[in-house]
Amino acid sequence: MGNNPFILSNLGIMNSMFEMEIIHQEGRARVGIFQTHHGKLKTPIFAPVGTQATVKTLTPDQLIELGASLVLSNTYHLYLRPGDELIAKMGGLHDFMHWDQPILTDSGGYQVFSLANTRKVDDDGVTFRSHIDGSTHRFTPESSIRIQENLGADIIMAFDECADPNDNEYIRSAMERTHVWAERCLQAKKRNDQALFGIIQGGVDLKLRIKSAKFISNLPFEGVAVGGLSVGESKQDMYTVLDTLEPIMPKSKPRYLMGVGTPEDLINGIARGIDIFDCVLPTRLARHHSAFSQEGRLNMMNATFSSDTRPIDVECQCYTCRNFSRAYIRHLVVAKETLASTLISIHNLHTLVNLTDRIRELIISGEFKKNMSQLLRKWDRNAKRTK
Amino acid sequence: MGNNPFILSNLGIMNSMFEMEIIHQEGRARVGIFQTHHGKLKTPIFAPVGTQATVKTLTPDQLIELGASLVLSNTYHLYLRPGDELIAKMGGLHDFMHWDQPILTDSGGYQVFSLANTRKVDDDGVTFRSHIDGSTHRFTPESSIRIQENLGADIIMAFDECADPNDNEYIRSAMERTHVWAERCLQAKKRNDQALFGIIQGGVDLKLRIKSAKFISNLPFEGVAVGGLSVGESKQDMYTVLDTLEPIMPKSKPRYLMGVGTPEDLINGIARGIDIFDCVLPTRLARHHSAFSQEGRLNMMNATFSSDTRPIDVECQCYTCRNFSRAYIRHLVVAKETLASTLISIHNLHTLVNLTDRIRELIISGEFKKNMSQLLRKWDRNAKRTK
Repeated sequence: MGNNPFILSNLGIMNSMFEMEIIHQEGRARVGIFQTHHGKLKTPIFAPVGTQATVKTLTPDQLIELGASLVLSNTYHLYLRPGDELIAKMGGLHDFMHWDQPILTDSGGYQVFSLANTRKVDDDGVTFRSHIDGSTHRFTPESSIRIQENLGADIIMAFDECADPNDNEYIRSAMERTHVWAERCLQAKKRNDQALFGIIQGGVDLKLRIKSAKFISNLPFEGVAVGGLSVGESKQDMYTVLDTLEPIMPKSKPRYLMGVGTPEDLINGIARGIDIFDCVLPTRLARHHSAFSQEGRLNMMNATFSSDTRPIDVECQCYTCRNFSRAYIRHLVVAKETLASTLISIHNLHTLVNLTDRIRELIISGEFKKNMSQLLRKWDRNAKRTK
Repeated sequence: MGNNPFILSNLGIMNSMFEMEIIHQEGRARVGIFQTHHGKLKTPIFAPVGTQATVKTLTPDQLIELGASLVLSNTYHLYLRPGDELIAKMGGLHDFMHWDQPILTDSGGYQVFSLANTRKVDDDGVTFRSHIDGSTHRFTPESSIRIQENLGADIIMAFDECADPNDNEYIRSAMERTHVWAERCLQAKKRNDQALFGIIQGGVDLKLRIKSAKFISNLPFEGVAVGGLSVGESKQDMYTVLDTLEPIMPKSKPRYLMGVGTPEDLINGIARGIDIFDCVLPTRLARHHSAFSQEGRLNMMNATFSSDTRPIDVECQCYTCRNFSRAYIRHLVVAKETLASTLISIHNLHTLVNLTDRIRELIISGEFKKNMSQLLRKWDRNAKRTK
């Protein structure tokens, strides 16, 4: 496979299509434009998660209305159901789910380690059983890339091994395997309309993180991602890792902090040079009737909202907050109406999308640092679980 | 209460606001405009049902986009939860659910007889236990009107007794009680921005139906409704009742066939002089992944759709059919994604709304009768249950 001239040329030259243009910088915080096959991404950006080729309870029109542009979808889920080959046959994921803006697919690595049953890892790949029907499957770096090429997202991810965050020896060996697999992913890649991102692993061990960041940054990926965070470590540990990685990661490539998505994590991540975020949190919270607000997360089932005429957040301009009261949303929650999840999802996603928009403006005017503590005060109560 | 001059004036004069303007007629089929406090209704019209102040899985914006104008909501459900007084305090049902087009509320009569537990009927009213928590409640004609005035719909319904369709003696006594209650509802009504409709009962007994139609038609209601159909009788029995009622019902008032909503029932109902329909069928079918189409009801879980690139209905112009394949919708159904219900609900409701729009055009051009058998051929397979 290494003899394929097409692949060699892919390894040799960065496709200029995928260059990251940094248009403003304030300290380590950056405002950029990343060109993809489905349009320009303005960073920093938050990507809603559409695990099964749908951001749960929302239509694509509602996603556009709330301001989303990049959507993440999961390779593991789509490979199992409905199948990547079927999606390719249907014209790819964009056509299938009717989303003509950029899509990012993960590699399946994280889900194999977090969702699948009885997996067996070897140097070549991972054998696992489907969480849906128990059937046996195998992912390798090459098959992950082939599946992601079938899906056809604009940004695809290298296949990585996700270690138990409490097992230091495993973290080291998983990181080393991730590095070998990263090179194999670059080799396996055939399509040149997809940007391939490498993933930095290493847990909260700063020496491992530095080693991983250097290794991944030196490979001809179109972007770098920070994996293995937001898995139970303290906020301070996460920020220390980001502080350590920032000077090592290439300035000229987008940087993606995987699976992170509370308002305060976005603020702190952007301040540490992160460009892209994704998280299931806003939609998952919504399905458990929990809404982001400047008062902290609101449990919309709470009886105190039963005749509250205010919107979820008085300053929010989303469809939900422009048109519906807390009392109405509480009624929908109590009556077990699906519209509750839809309306709270719109609000929670808009909150994060709007927050990154706001921070982008602040960076452009050089006022992010000045306003950061105020932004954190405004949003940090949302770190707490709903009571 | 009968001495209240305001109420007496209401009984004496028809409020001109609520006159039905018949702008075209072809045979018994009518095209009309019915002015309500929230705008003009173009009839014939199909009303989606929003039982708990939400048409399940849809936002008001999606309802408008699919062409809905009149929405029905259920007095029984809203009285129990969140309570009609709360809704009044929140500015009424229109504000509460963010729907500024016309709303119709039923009287609660049908639900008391079909949903509530251990009901006891007497000449004054009905005592029943809530299906939600078993608590005891009482509806009378007066309380039903008071609740509907709190909710604030544009069209409200007289409180009726719904009899077991297989019990002929009960049908007669329930009809007689319904007549007494109809007069009490007219007496109880205070708001003059709401149109009050009376309900014709009598099962499939044509003599009872004629008696009831004459009685209700002679009262100063702003519209008449046909209740107690689509409860297990044959299609032919339903059409015979409608054929019998049509010459008796006032020409100058809207005629509403309650709870009826298959495509072929709409066609046959309009041909028999019906102006307004409502039914939970399109949204309930959608939640059971069943879609109206010219091929008959499609079970969208069917494996034959797994790589079908066509929309549900190739001729349909709804948001769902313009943008999504059967394969994608099937994937959503199999993956148990809520978006499946949303997309199929949009399609099923649009199908009925669009069908009434089409028939309105045909009546205006005098071609409804000529096209009726073709319309019935196109849609009659949807009468069948999904296999």
